Amino acid sequence: MSDVTDQLPKNGPEKDQLLQNMQQAVLNGDQVWVKATLEAMHPADASDLLEQMPRDEFEAALALLGGELPSDVLIELRDEYREDAVEALPDAAVVDALDELDSDDATTVLEDLDENRRERILDELEPVDRAVLEARLVHDEDTAGRLMQHEFLAAPEFWTVGHTIDHARDNAAELPDDFYEVYVVDPKIHPVGYVLLSQLLRTPRNVKLSDIMSDLHSDISVATDQEEVAYQFQKYSLASAPVKDEEGRLVGMITVDDMVDVIQEENTEDLLALSNVSSADGSDTVFETVRARAPWLAVNLVTAFIASGIIALFEDTLDQIVQLAILMPVVAALAGNAGSQGLAVAVRAIAEREMEGAAQRRAIVRETTTGVVQGVLFAIGVGLVSLLWFRDTQLAIVISLAMFASFVWAGFSGILVPLALRKAGADPAVASSVFVLTLTDTMAFFSFLGLATLILL
Amino acid sequence: MSDVTDQLPKNGPEKDQLLQNMQQAVLNGDQVWVKATLEAMHPADASDLLEQMPRDEFEAALALLGGELPSDVLIELRDEYREDAVEALPDAAVVDALDELDSDDATTVLEDLDENRRERILDELEPVDRAVLEARLVHDEDTAGRLMQHEFLAAPEFWTVGHTIDHARDNAAELPDDFYEVYVVDPKIHPVGYVLLSQLLRTPRNVKLSDIMSDLHSDISVATDQEEVAYQFQKYSLASAPVKDEEGRLVGMITVDDMVDVIQEENTEDLLALSNVSSADGSDTVFETVRARAPWLAVNLVTAFIASGIIALFEDTLDQIVQLAILMPVVAALAGNAGSQGLAVAVRAIAEREMEGAAQRRAIVRETTTGVVQGVLFAIGVGLVSLLWFRDTQLAIVISLAMFASFVWAGFSGILVPLALRKAGADPAVASSVFVLTLTDTMAFFSFLGLATLILL
Repeated sequence: MSDVTDQLPKNGPEKDQLLQNMQQAVLNGDQVWVKATLEAMHPADASDLLEQMPRDEFEAALALLGGELPSDVLIELRDEYREDAVEALPDAAVVDALDELDSDDATTVLEDLDENRRERILDELEPVDRAVLEARLVHDEDTAGRLMQHEFLAAPEFWTVGHTIDHARDNAAELPDDFYEVYVVDPKIHPVGYVLLSQLLRTPRNVKLSDIMSDLHSDISVATDQEEVAYQFQKYSLASAPVKDEEGRLVGMITVDDMVDVIQEENTEDLLALSNVSSADGSDTVFETVRARAPWLAVNLVTAFIASGIIALFEDTLDQIVQLAILMPVVAALAGNAGSQGLAVAVRAIAEREMEGAAQRRAIVRETTTGVVQGVLFAIGVGLVSLLWFRDTQLAIVISLAMFASFVWAGFSGILVPLALRKAGADPAVASSVFVLTLTDTMAFFSFLGLATLILL
Repeated sequence: MSDVTDQLPKNGPEKDQLLQNMQQAVLNGDQVWVKATLEAMHPADASDLLEQMPRDEFEAALALLGGELPSDVLIELRDEYREDAVEALPDAAVVDALDELDSDDATTVLEDLDENRRERILDELEPVDRAVLEARLVHDEDTAGRLMQHEFLAAPEFWTVGHTIDHARDNAAELPDDFYEVYVVDPKIHPVGYVLLSQLLRTPRNVKLSDIMSDLHSDISVATDQEEVAYQFQKYSLASAPVKDEEGRLVGMITVDDMVDVIQEENTEDLLALSNVSSADGSDTVFETVRARAPWLAVNLVTAFIASGIIALFEDTLDQIVQLAILMPVVAALAGNAGSQGLAVAVRAIAEREMEGAAQRRAIVRETTTGVVQGVLFAIGVGLVSLLWFRDTQLAIVISLAMFASFVWAGFSGILVPLALRKAGADPAVASSVFVLTLTDTMAFFSFLGLATLILL
């Protein structure tokens, strides 16, 4: 084993070499080497290595390992790879993995199974484990009830520091692997406070928990949405938090590492949604990629032809002044860009909950004023360039006025579209960019060609 | 005090009421109420309340409080508000805050001061505190050296669990408020492993740390960039990690709450950069907003006129066939959208380090193939709509061919531009969208008008 460990690199060209060795070993069917290498690595590094392989080689590696993929590597795999792996593993291996994993991770694996296989595998678990896992699956996806683990350390208020530590030593096997605080509960098992382990550690044995406990700031129940949970973790700088059932009893614990994943997931969703991509993963096939993107392009096809319809209204004008066709994309491009800027800022502020009450009113005023200021700046800029190019004062005046109107409109749309979507209960990141661009395009073409018809003809 | 605490709401209309009460109290100069209310709240809630006030009212509140703004509220404020607050506080209050805060938070406050005032205030600190803070300022911003705190618990390998706990009790005052693990060090103070507090807690007193310690997976030195630190936290699900100096000696600790902030910051930067905004904050003035956006619009002004230049090449063609002017924005809009989709996916994959070696080659193949597939789909779609509208087969063929060429080009640009920027050492999120849109616009206009000139005239 030490041979294997010694050759494990963290970065750079050695990492590529390790990948090549792994691919070669899979090709050669060298099960012993593959298994020893994966076990010698940190599970996160091992899963990274497996994910670097193309999907078909990854499946070959799984087949080679049979049921021998360590459960801590399995749980570190990205969704798509983990689903493939769970599908490929024999039932007995899945049962073993469920036994070994904490209940939150076990639930993730269970979710990957189809109905029939899930039933079959649940039947093979110990009745207690089965009950715990089935209780979790009752909660909606993306809620605290799904994310939490059932293993945690709770103690009544009257326990002393010494008693609590002794209890932990005596019940070591039932405690979670990592935890950061003890939850103090009343006789009804309602959490009333918490004691950080670092606090417990530095306090004399005879002190009561009630004397050193802090107030709970988080307020999380099994039905709380994961976005709200992540928000509370960030706001109160939490490492973990207790989860209550509908009656307010302590039933689980959420730890910050899961919240970091949620935060990344929500951020990725917003960023992709703003660019009209519904989902993306490094292992996506072309088919999956097209499925995640083509629907929005189809919507864009409709909106683009609407913009064309606006242009078509001014066919006669365009026929007489060809310069308008040359300049019209400038107005649309700049206004669209200004609208996207405001939109990105608004979507971000909404996600970070900085767009409430007075802050929202301030943002609307700021974005509109910014539209006016930038409208003046770029009306002058675009007007000057056009004047230099075409030496036509009236044309320059027309494009300047259109630019100004489009910027003010872009300022409005960039802030009002996401706020309206939020008010309607929709995700402001999804769909807003298509709306905003359609609104700015329409305004740009209409104002430019309309003013040209009025002034130049 | 209990009156104040009882009336503290968490959400909804009561929160707006509290804000109004606070604004009224500031207006009335009711220092006692303002102070008592802020102290009764969690620092994160108190800072939220202050941030909801317009900047001028916030400054009035600061003036009213004088030096009485609690340091834990100060440190929770968003950058802009904290800078204002530090500026407004008297020197004595800043010195008190620096005394009370952990060294990482104290550094944040020091960074807000101008050179002269910083010197003056450092002079008033205890020599030991001063030395610690000055040592930190040596490290570059955005490195582990700036983010870490100097307070942590380290122990030699031969210590037992009991000895470690006793040591923590005897030195309680010097330990950080929150920490999650003990770092095990060799005689040269090089970290060789760690013991989670939850592990320490459940292990009998006579067991040696060397028998229960785990290997360190993180590898962070004072010079490590914060993005790399955040990556290691995510990858290895860390709650905290040790920081080493250039000689590999343990000098500090970073905790996950700071990393969550870094992750949010990096995500915000990427999302805004993709929409050509260089920075944004809820409290920005119109001037700050324009300064963060106008430079990219100015770049866009240049690129938009480049696209116009392409169109101008085909002035004669446009003069003869006005339908081209009507349809040309459709080609540009769809191709631009397709390019942005690929770009967003690529930028995200780069940020999540999923775009290395084999994965990069796969992504290039996937994006190009996606361009071809979507090119075929939308060439047919756009062609059909054009045919129905204008009843002109040749025009429909021209726009279909242009659409196909532009989609393939968009697929290429969306992936190659960010990869090229990364290779050049630039941030792939910044500037890529302007590049990609310019490339797709140029291709769209050139292919559509060029093919029209060849085929239709």
